[in-house]
Amino acid sequence: MKTQVAIIGAGPSGLLLGQLLHKAGIDTLIVERQTPDYVLGRIRAGVLEQGTVDLLREAGVGERMDREGLVHEGVELLVGGRRQRLDLKALTGGKTVMVYGQTEVTRDLMQAREQSGAPIIYSASKVQPHDIDGAQPYLTFEKDGQLHRVDCDYIAGCDGFHGVARQSIPDGVLKAYERVYPFGWLGLLADTPPVNHELIYAHHERGFVLCSQRSQTRSRYYLQVPLQERVEDWPDARFWGELKARLPEEVGERLVTGPALEKSIAPLRSLVVEPMQHGRLFLVGDAAHIVPPTGAKGLNLAASDVNYLYRILLKVYREGRTDLLAQYSPMALRRVWKGERFSWFMTQLLHDFGEHHDDWDRKMQEADREYFLSSQAGLVNIAENYVGLPFEVVE
Amino acid sequence: MKTQVAIIGAGPSGLLLGQLLHKAGIDTLIVERQTPDYVLGRIRAGVLEQGTVDLLREAGVGERMDREGLVHEGVELLVGGRRQRLDLKALTGGKTVMVYGQTEVTRDLMQAREQSGAPIIYSASKVQPHDIDGAQPYLTFEKDGQLHRVDCDYIAGCDGFHGVARQSIPDGVLKAYERVYPFGWLGLLADTPPVNHELIYAHHERGFVLCSQRSQTRSRYYLQVPLQERVEDWPDARFWGELKARLPEEVGERLVTGPALEKSIAPLRSLVVEPMQHGRLFLVGDAAHIVPPTGAKGLNLAASDVNYLYRILLKVYREGRTDLLAQYSPMALRRVWKGERFSWFMTQLLHDFGEHHDDWDRKMQEADREYFLSSQAGLVNIAENYVGLPFEVVE
Repeated sequence: MKTQVAIIGAGPSGLLLGQLLHKAGIDTLIVERQTPDYVLGRIRAGVLEQGTVDLLREAGVGERMDREGLVHEGVELLVGGRRQRLDLKALTGGKTVMVYGQTEVTRDLMQAREQSGAPIIYSASKVQPHDIDGAQPYLTFEKDGQLHRVDCDYIAGCDGFHGVARQSIPDGVLKAYERVYPFGWLGLLADTPPVNHELIYAHHERGFVLCSQRSQTRSRYYLQVPLQERVEDWPDARFWGELKARLPEEVGERLVTGPALEKSIAPLRSLVVEPMQHGRLFLVGDAAHIVPPTGAKGLNLAASDVNYLYRILLKVYREGRTDLLAQYSPMALRRVWKGERFSWFMTQLLHDFGEHHDDWDRKMQEADREYFLSSQAGLVNIAENYVGLPFEVVE
Repeated sequence: MKTQVAIIGAGPSGLLLGQLLHKAGIDTLIVERQTPDYVLGRIRAGVLEQGTVDLLREAGVGERMDREGLVHEGVELLVGGRRQRLDLKALTGGKTVMVYGQTEVTRDLMQAREQSGAPIIYSASKVQPHDIDGAQPYLTFEKDGQLHRVDCDYIAGCDGFHGVARQSIPDGVLKAYERVYPFGWLGLLADTPPVNHELIYAHHERGFVLCSQRSQTRSRYYLQVPLQERVEDWPDARFWGELKARLPEEVGERLVTGPALEKSIAPLRSLVVEPMQHGRLFLVGDAAHIVPPTGAKGLNLAASDVNYLYRILLKVYREGRTDLLAQYSPMALRRVWKGERFSWFMTQLLHDFGEHHDDWDRKMQEADREYFLSSQAGLVNIAENYVGLPFEVVE
């Protein structure tokens, strides 16, 4: 087989990159280790930045999102029992976010891929990039017991943090930066109307809470829990009780409970590997960086990488601008680090760090909350990061 | 002896409080352990917030400051060789800072005190507050071998961090919050024209630098140095050489060197004790809190405390509003913590923490610098704190 850009991974970043390149007349082939159902089964983020929304529209997959997605013009911050609305639209000169689940984004992209007729291979095992240092890289994989080879110009590693793309870069090339947090998020998905029409981020002495949603009838709630906590110890009733205990009474009494469709605990961590390119292999999204979910940046940073790689490849194929290939990693990383900073800041601002914080740390955390929520500049600061900082222009 | 408000300490906060109360017709008596020359010999801060300037004018001691002080409408931030002017005036809707040395402020206040004829006793030893828990507190001290007693309504502890005021509060009442930094500032004062018409705060891989000034002919420079460094190891030539090495070439070549009038190393620390009141004793300024000098907040937070205590005492004596006395500590502390937060933030942003920072910390520090200096909201954030956040109204 032969293609121009071989894409490893059919999650939202691989599919989005594939769709954008396909629309631009650039050949792509996507290989994915899992089945489509497995990919769709992953419960992930649900808040899209303005720039992600624009990119999905540019890829021609924005129709259902624009119909069913919920435009949110603000979020609520609850600190010390005080409710403060962060008016995203007013604070950012008109920007908003879109509440539309990652599962739905993936479904739309899968459908577009299918309609386009561009090749996508699921259940591909032993995927392996080769000769990424040279001028003619290729991929190999097994499908139904047969070995396949894909010759290509470039390889995009969109296969997540545990994927093969990053692991195929020689030892000593990448440097990793990491922060592990001493807590996790216990998440619950339920077919109940959200407790509030906007998202609520709450700091509480019992721990952080996020009241999120996927639609007007599907809620997603998260509780900060100790790392060693087990899902088995959290029957639905305990979850709902704890959630209520961390919300102000007038919010808690509006809470509609129901059986959990899904319940899981995710640890929080920050991680970046540098650079995001080696030879003709480009790392995209989770393959190169992880954020704690507090700033809703995971999917959006993946879309940010896709944005840069797509625009660079466009100029490479249309204008012969191969000089731009070396710009991918520095450009993508500048925005990644801003997203990492914001995710780390929001995590620090709103969680209880227990014994990992001394008295001074706690006072500074309190002072940060007090300052950022009482100053107009502080509110703009949070809002402009939440809706997403602007992209640099590829030129 | 008898007075209404006994003030311990004749530094700028004690003198300013005394002057404001005297102008309002409230009797004060100031006792100071040192001589006037000793007090004037302390080399300290030189940047006054708008609110501090206004308070000095209100006290009637702003004349020489307004004539000789330098209004600065901006400061320069140098990060990674990039020069970025922080346009304080534009970013804060018209606010500026005044460069006028603490020594000059103290001199003006001393002169005003002398002219007012209000009592001030220097070289008072064994100063001791008594019965601060009761309705009739008093001070005792020795002067020229004689024991004196001052009966009063209230005592203001303006005697700095090592003073007797805080130490006279019973054990277990105060809680201290502290952060010690792993470096100090080596300062040099010289009668040379400042290298730049505005202050320069510079982050450099060799360490932080501050190019400050006291007037158009007197410069004050600071270098971040390891805590164990000794002044004896820093002859003038070494200081100037190191300073130049940490500045961009086009700045360094304008540097005019000269013999040091003063040279010293100060450790950096953050410290707050809570509450700032016990019975009829009120702690003011350094007696209750210390900031690292990076945000130029030390003298300004002392003035902030004076502002609150003065306005509260005014209402106590004029309107019988003794209920306000309990508001002093919470009101003063809210602003103190904001100043502590900013000083800690600026210190973290601009210093090299060496082995005390891991790779992730360094990346977040870099990302903070990148974000705050590239975002309008980030610049406003720094500027509004630098010129001083607004006071709450005492009512």
